[in-house]
Amino acid sequence: MASLPGKTVERLSEYRRTLLACLAENRNFIFSHDLAARLHITAVQVRRDLMLIGYTSVHRKGYDVKELIETISRIIDSGEGMNVAIIGIGNLGRALAAYFKGKRSKLNLVASFDNDPQKINKVISGVKCYPYDELEKIVAELKIEIAILTVPADFAKEIAEELIRAGIKGILNFTTVPLNVPSDVYLEEYDMITSIEKVAYFVKENKL
Amino acid sequence: MASLPGKTVERLSEYRRTLLACLAENRNFIFSHDLAARLHITAVQVRRDLMLIGYTSVHRKGYDVKELIETISRIIDSGEGMNVAIIGIGNLGRALAAYFKGKRSKLNLVASFDNDPQKINKVISGVKCYPYDELEKIVAELKIEIAILTVPADFAKEIAEELIRAGIKGILNFTTVPLNVPSDVYLEEYDMITSIEKVAYFVKENKL
Repeated sequence: MASLPGKTVERLSEYRRTLLACLAENRNFIFSHDLAARLHITAVQVRRDLMLIGYTSVHRKGYDVKELIETISRIIDSGEGMNVAIIGIGNLGRALAAYFKGKRSKLNLVASFDNDPQKINKVISGVKCYPYDELEKIVAELKIEIAILTVPADFAKEIAEELIRAGIKGILNFTTVPLNVPSDVYLEEYDMITSIEKVAYFVKENKL
Repeated sequence: MASLPGKTVERLSEYRRTLLACLAENRNFIFSHDLAARLHITAVQVRRDLMLIGYTSVHRKGYDVKELIETISRIIDSGEGMNVAIIGIGNLGRALAAYFKGKRSKLNLVASFDNDPQKINKVISGVKCYPYDELEKIVAELKIEIAILTVPADFAKEIAEELIRAGIKGILNFTTVPLNVPSDVYLEEYDMITSIEKVAYFVKENKL
């Protein structure tokens, strides 16, 4: 199967999270329109995405929740799991670390990095914090493939280059600095200020 | 002028941030292809967006950086500025609060809310923290129009309903729970787990 479009992968991740919430509510079946409504999208979109991953098993009571979770997981997860590090363990880094706690996920948070002597060699939010000059060594030792970048903007470029030299294969960039990466490294960027400014714009427009 | 598409607003916000960085480097002119390259998009996209906001003043040295910042600001900012509150001042809330510090922005962070007695009535990250039962009163008193929601998932729906009752006009939802809002409230949602799972998927695909 060819790689899925990015937007489809995002929705599959959201479907899975919604389906896990259904399981927690003891719901074992769900119709596409119900799944769609919970995510503010159309049932057609849900069915199209599931067709893309070859899932057509529709019961008369709807999709089998457990079965669909397993199918999505087979597609989007890596069989052996993947190790993740948080680069810059300030407030945002700690907030992100909290998402990994207690999740039966294939993504394992195994380290954080920072330059603050108060943090280095301590366990913060459940993982050990290493200094930046051990980046290459620890990335290799702990087989870290994904880096979540939450350093101050001024360091973003420099640290990203070090991550790439260290062999990181995917970067989730939360700094406000757009990065350049080689084609074998996957980069996803999110800028909170842009989201806030977007909300402000549409609030202003709604008032007109 | 009709409201701009959401994606255009996002890019205008990014152009402005890039242009402000240029000013800081003492660059007073920039070509569309240079602005585009810094944001990994095409020059055609930049020119199309600026045409949409009626900006066509291209100097032979490129765009006048200061003038373009002012033009974008006139379009996306609210004249009088807008007041913002952070709902749930944990690690993520504090990380977001830090973005507002020292910015000459039209967005003013004026309050935070939490249910932790250790936080209530204290100044955290530069703003006073109020209890949830004062939400309606404080939103009215401080004329808060935008809420940034960073509460634990279990409270998200309940608190969002209270925000809407209190008259909030825009919500930026960072919880993993999709919300429903009336049509006069603008909702923007961001889910970090989805971004992380997307990076993991493409790292896995790149290895195949």
